[in-house]
Amino acid sequence: MRKPEDGRRRVVIESVKPEIDCGRFPVKRVVGDTVVVEADLFGDGHDHVSASLLFRRERDRNWQSLPMTAIGNDRWRGNFTVPEQGRYYYTVAGQVDHFGTWRADLAKRIVAGQDVTVDLKNGSLLIAAAAQLAKTRDRARLLEWARLLVEENAGADAKTLALDEGLAGLVARYQDKKLQSRHDKELVVTVDRERARFSAWYEFFPRSASPEAGVHGTFKDCEARLPYVVQMGFDVLYFPPIHPIGHAFRKGKNNAVSAEPDDVGSPWAIGSAEGGHTSIHPQLGTLADFRSLRDKAALLGLEIALDIAFQCAPDHPWVTKHPAWFKKRADGTIQYAENPPKKYQDIYPLDFESDEWDDLWDGLRDVFLYWAGEGIKIFRVDNPHTKAFPFWEWVIPEVKRRYPDVLFLAEAFTRPRVMQRLAKLGFTQSYTYFTWRNTKQELTEYFIELTTDDVKEYFGPNLWPNTPDILPELLQTGGKAAFEYRLVLAATLGASYGIYGAAFELGESAPFKPGGEEYLHSEKYELKHWDLAAPTSLSGLIAQINRIRRDNLALHSNVGLVFHATDNDSLICYSKSTEDGASIVLVIVNLDTVNVQSGWVSLNLTALHQAPDKTFTVEDLLTGATYSWQGPTNYVELSPEKMPAHIFRLTAATLDEASVDDGK
Amino acid sequence: MRKPEDGRRRVVIESVKPEIDCGRFPVKRVVGDTVVVEADLFGDGHDHVSASLLFRRERDRNWQSLPMTAIGNDRWRGNFTVPEQGRYYYTVAGQVDHFGTWRADLAKRIVAGQDVTVDLKNGSLLIAAAAQLAKTRDRARLLEWARLLVEENAGADAKTLALDEGLAGLVARYQDKKLQSRHDKELVVTVDRERARFSAWYEFFPRSASPEAGVHGTFKDCEARLPYVVQMGFDVLYFPPIHPIGHAFRKGKNNAVSAEPDDVGSPWAIGSAEGGHTSIHPQLGTLADFRSLRDKAALLGLEIALDIAFQCAPDHPWVTKHPAWFKKRADGTIQYAENPPKKYQDIYPLDFESDEWDDLWDGLRDVFLYWAGEGIKIFRVDNPHTKAFPFWEWVIPEVKRRYPDVLFLAEAFTRPRVMQRLAKLGFTQSYTYFTWRNTKQELTEYFIELTTDDVKEYFGPNLWPNTPDILPELLQTGGKAAFEYRLVLAATLGASYGIYGAAFELGESAPFKPGGEEYLHSEKYELKHWDLAAPTSLSGLIAQINRIRRDNLALHSNVGLVFHATDNDSLICYSKSTEDGASIVLVIVNLDTVNVQSGWVSLNLTALHQAPDKTFTVEDLLTGATYSWQGPTNYVELSPEKMPAHIFRLTAATLDEASVDDGK
Repeated sequence: MRKPEDGRRRVVIESVKPEIDCGRFPVKRVVGDTVVVEADLFGDGHDHVSASLLFRRERDRNWQSLPMTAIGNDRWRGNFTVPEQGRYYYTVAGQVDHFGTWRADLAKRIVAGQDVTVDLKNGSLLIAAAAQLAKTRDRARLLEWARLLVEENAGADAKTLALDEGLAGLVARYQDKKLQSRHDKELVVTVDRERARFSAWYEFFPRSASPEAGVHGTFKDCEARLPYVVQMGFDVLYFPPIHPIGHAFRKGKNNAVSAEPDDVGSPWAIGSAEGGHTSIHPQLGTLADFRSLRDKAALLGLEIALDIAFQCAPDHPWVTKHPAWFKKRADGTIQYAENPPKKYQDIYPLDFESDEWDDLWDGLRDVFLYWAGEGIKIFRVDNPHTKAFPFWEWVIPEVKRRYPDVLFLAEAFTRPRVMQRLAKLGFTQSYTYFTWRNTKQELTEYFIELTTDDVKEYFGPNLWPNTPDILPELLQTGGKAAFEYRLVLAATLGASYGIYGAAFELGESAPFKPGGEEYLHSEKYELKHWDLAAPTSLSGLIAQINRIRRDNLALHSNVGLVFHATDNDSLICYSKSTEDGASIVLVIVNLDTVNVQSGWVSLNLTALHQAPDKTFTVEDLLTGATYSWQGPTNYVELSPEKMPAHIFRLTAATLDEASVDDGK
Repeated sequence: MRKPEDGRRRVVIESVKPEIDCGRFPVKRVVGDTVVVEADLFGDGHDHVSASLLFRRERDRNWQSLPMTAIGNDRWRGNFTVPEQGRYYYTVAGQVDHFGTWRADLAKRIVAGQDVTVDLKNGSLLIAAAAQLAKTRDRARLLEWARLLVEENAGADAKTLALDEGLAGLVARYQDKKLQSRHDKELVVTVDRERARFSAWYEFFPRSASPEAGVHGTFKDCEARLPYVVQMGFDVLYFPPIHPIGHAFRKGKNNAVSAEPDDVGSPWAIGSAEGGHTSIHPQLGTLADFRSLRDKAALLGLEIALDIAFQCAPDHPWVTKHPAWFKKRADGTIQYAENPPKKYQDIYPLDFESDEWDDLWDGLRDVFLYWAGEGIKIFRVDNPHTKAFPFWEWVIPEVKRRYPDVLFLAEAFTRPRVMQRLAKLGFTQSYTYFTWRNTKQELTEYFIELTTDDVKEYFGPNLWPNTPDILPELLQTGGKAAFEYRLVLAATLGASYGIYGAAFELGESAPFKPGGEEYLHSEKYELKHWDLAAPTSLSGLIAQINRIRRDNLALHSNVGLVFHATDNDSLICYSKSTEDGASIVLVIVNLDTVNVQSGWVSLNLTALHQAPDKTFTVEDLLTGATYSWQGPTNYVELSPEKMPAHIFRLTAATLDEASVDDGK
């Protein structure tokens, strides 16, 4: 057995958190966040140890060091903030604190009335050693201190001086780090702009934006639609693919196998003689039109997100230009998409086992780079789980290296491990199972899962009550109350959420067939003409809720979420709050779309920053009503007819020391 | 960003278990054990994947491969056995299973009545590719198969042939592994002989073995004591240090600061002019006497364990020969042990920050090697947590490299993280908190902690109701019932346990001072003369319990432990069983040393391999009484006067398939 380089490094560092998959993957933060780091750290024997949190920006060579604090059971905690977009590194270091050990022992010896002459000499040597590492002025102070401790006849003065707090701090600053232990990994935080976490998305089909029914909409029409979206308070406007649509095997209305001559086709069947993934569907307009729309949106505070779907219609230019990117069948034809026995002959998947995979990866990367070059910094990626995982691990940092503010949303409604893997590989946000989580128990379990443990460190949930592919059963049957409360849940459980409009705000609820989740007359296959001014539209409520989201910092984050007990399974109650208690929001939702439900909530007052003995006011931000509550148990009643949810704002009580200690 | 070497490796491998601290530390097994390995494993898209468990002995170059089975939610499981002492490596591999995907899809197409002409051609190509990797005979079979699938007018025959089970297995054997993914770590199992896990220890002081009171015992006297120990059924005989004892600052009886001239001193104050850690205390005898004792013990099936305490009396030869191994105080004297304000001037600790640490490590290793050379293969290490951790990580494999059958027991009664670290570093067994865990809740929580998660993979508990340092309060006050039931708990909760005798079997219960845990007239500082033939001795019960341990395989392991509910907090109930149900032991203990306690136990029948509707017999191995029980709820009553425990043996019912599915 080989000995270690220096066997005198006596401090052990274990169980560093956060650390995803042994440090293989970064954790995620947004600008201004804090990274709390914990580790088990201890030495042999009774010597004191000291722990340091080391961190640096990627471009810096030198580590910054902050002391960590012991929190019990050999666990230590520290934190650092990440003020800039980009990558930071962090790790943990520790060492035996000889001076701290000496000082603590000395205090005990003095209390026991022991002769400490030799101990003072020992300490003097430790202080003199620290002096050697200090700069001029501190060195002089330390040397003087070392001298005074061993001065003849110093007596009681030397003892007092030996335990001087300020001088101890000075020694700590000049610890010899020769025998410091380092955690064996340098861990990474990727820091994005705030929109990575806090965003409200509105999806619409540009081709349905025409003011005239039956006419193909254009980017110009979209410009006219911008104020409508802005007034509802969204900040991301997401378009399904805007590229030329294939003609070969084009699908007709309601996913009919054969299209009629005037059928517009699915925007996800990408590519034709008119171009592929970096082209614009001619009927939508020109690149100049697209740029104009992008700029007008930006002026209104609205950022455009594009849908990147890496698949090709049979007439996509790549099919002839890069035949090796596609899989061949034994008869020499190209393999179309299928999920046997279903066949999707209008779609050719890309072959990630192609001999030209290297070239394929470059080609796909160039799609992102092209649109990023056109100022698009948010990509909603279609079915990323059907593309090879190593590709995502490479392409996301590759794009961010050139465009650090690019964000990626993974549209992978699939198994948990697969969704988590994509998030680890770099996807900023992910669609979630929220779409199908309806009951109190389902919602509670799922959101506890998303906001605890490692998952919260890398998985950025984006909550959608509906999508063009998914009209959940609850929205088919639940009427207006279902749309209202699913909106409240999405917008308050998730720091990021989105809706597929206008289907959502207009309450579109007819399925293609009973028991299915496809929309009848799905916009995926035909132009739609929406009556946005309909009096039943939820646009007013949406605007109100998005305003509440902006105004209340607690709703900008996924953590700080606490569920509170209710005595009625139709009532779900949860709160979000910032750590300092500056923003506290309490949400109560009636999950019954038919009946008035009432009951008692049992609030976790500590989580709400309230004192048990003081009255506090809850202000319903939806209705303006205020209630005066005291203690954990309070009565609520919610009517699906009127408004199936409360969104209360609370103000933190000034807690006295005792109750803070007690409650935290 | 650099691309990976081959971006076409599409299978992801995550969360491999067991894997201790990202694979830094081995897991532990004994000869003949099975290692169950699990991993999350999945690919992109809908392709099937296949998973392999790879393993090899350290000396083998080639990996053996066994298929893993999907157990749901993308988790896979496999296992391998470790028939030999030494080190094994294991890891997980996976790849896309193109043939499996093709075969499953083909079956669906056939059911749907689709034309599969091209699909058969695709399959034929896959089979032909496998043939290229096959040996002569299999190759011929595969090529023939490939040909038949595409034969003109084969029709329905080709379809049947395509789905042939046997031929599918043949293709699976010749998968191209070019695009196989490997877990990024090779994990280690250390495999010890069975005694590493299953052992019953008896500790006694050789110097107290004289048949005559007041006379210093010898190894010859110990030989005469062997049958007594063997008859009680122990298999490890552990001696406190047998080295010369220091004279400087020797402690007197009851730890008095000054010794009387005839005081024998503490065996842990090691070394004098007569020698150090590789010498034998002259009053015990010669090396020849020691060898004779060792051989006689071995003939009786008793293995001697030595106590290795790395610390020195001031007159230890090392103090003058290796002054750099000790720390100096500022006045030039050597630093003695202390825990301020307490001073232990009879002990010099070794300085693991010595400039000569390299030399010190060699010196300490040589102590182990010396005694291993003398045939001692079990070391009980005194206070390993006060020696540098890196030393243990080096020395344990270093010793085992030359003497693979050496076992190490860590005597570290300290914080959980520290005890766990020592086990990770290589200690085979560890003392535990069992000594102080008394209530039903304490015992249940602690043993669930020790037998679940990662801890069970590396931490080998050894349970001691008493030690020369620790007379727990319960044994001071609880009388005979306390000794009896603590013995039952230790011997059945732990596959390894030990007692400090004769203090234990003779019920020694007087503390040095009330509230403390030191023995009055502790054997650590004086010769003792024990009346081993006392009629109150528990030696008969001990012999019976050790016989029960040997006869019942369930008690040879720490896993397979299940706690069963009782309606009385004074009654604890647990079972151990082998996985196949061949050995099932159910233990019920009355924790009240004064009162008869009775109540109802609610048995987990699945854990006991019993059917809910069938009568089963429980046979008390202590009393021979048998009871006929049915269903989970059964009545028990235990008297501290008679026997405070049941140790029941059960026979597994022949469970029908349905109840197995239901219960597991």
